[in-house]
Amino acid sequence: MGDKAERTREKIRQAAYSLFAEKGFKEVTMTAICEQTGLSRGGLYRYYTGTGEIFSEILSQEYRISHRIAQGERATDILEDMLNEIQKEILERERSLSLAIYEYASLGNEELFIRLNDNAKSRWKSLIAYGMREGEFNKVDPDQASELILYYYQGLRMWSRVIPLNTREAENYVNSIRQMLCKNKD
Amino acid sequence: MGDKAERTREKIRQAAYSLFAEKGFKEVTMTAICEQTGLSRGGLYRYYTGTGEIFSEILSQEYRISHRIAQGERATDILEDMLNEIQKEILERERSLSLAIYEYASLGNEELFIRLNDNAKSRWKSLIAYGMREGEFNKVDPDQASELILYYYQGLRMWSRVIPLNTREAENYVNSIRQMLCKNKD
Repeated sequence: MGDKAERTREKIRQAAYSLFAEKGFKEVTMTAICEQTGLSRGGLYRYYTGTGEIFSEILSQEYRISHRIAQGERATDILEDMLNEIQKEILERERSLSLAIYEYASLGNEELFIRLNDNAKSRWKSLIAYGMREGEFNKVDPDQASELILYYYQGLRMWSRVIPLNTREAENYVNSIRQMLCKNKD
Repeated sequence: MGDKAERTREKIRQAAYSLFAEKGFKEVTMTAICEQTGLSRGGLYRYYTGTGEIFSEILSQEYRISHRIAQGERATDILEDMLNEIQKEILERERSLSLAIYEYASLGNEELFIRLNDNAKSRWKSLIAYGMREGEFNKVDPDQASELILYYYQGLRMWSRVIPLNTREAENYVNSIRQMLCKNKD
């Protein structure tokens, strides 16, 4: 795909992200995405067949770490970068996709979420196993630790739309993960 | 309130719970609750002024532990009872109120959830502080530890409606909490 096409797709995803975060999945229409992006209907459909495809692509974008592990970067550095990303996200209340995820799943897209969940878990497990192998991380059960990291995050993301969370909750999150994984952090 | 009145209120809450879990908050009407309970409209309104009051009362019911702490029971025993309750709940996918909570909060009931969240946190903090004082629990930050317990749970509850969770996820949850709090569990 050409650069220009990829830029347009990225513009569409960004506009759609805001709409999904604001309205959930069901209420967002292709028409609304046209309005938000300034694209014509024909223009939009050239890139995406529907809101489901856009939403699924947004969710599939992930922080990549395998090349960093392959290059032998320190596990602690990779972890810190991931935690920094997450800490920022937790406080962006208006960017939580929890309701849209809930709605999209209820429309029968369980397989997508099983795959996304498996991918996210594999990513964390590979980092944890790597950090343990290198002697940087505590000996933990990688499966159990990655579930804690992922579901605790999802709980915060959902609750950020129910009550106002502050920097303290985000800090407590990253500190819990650090203390679980990193040596001498207790 | 008489015993019979309390039994009727309990019957109403149980019927409404199932409806909220199934449909979220917005779609549940007093009419539907009448049908589910067999009460007349006048009968139902004698006990509750609306679905918001019923929902708020359901959410306010909580596992009480202060009397157990006051009686000097072992912190570990209280913890195990709470974890058993939670472990059962996590797997009851059809009883998750996450969507209803989300919807009710979006209607402007933030204060209720701030209060519920504060209460739940205080309950956990008091147990953790008690367990530390008695030398049964590890030295942790009670604030940080109770947030992990609560938000990790909420994430699991929400995701139990997105993907099928199995006993393993519930076990990993209780094991993480146990290892965090209890001595010699690592």
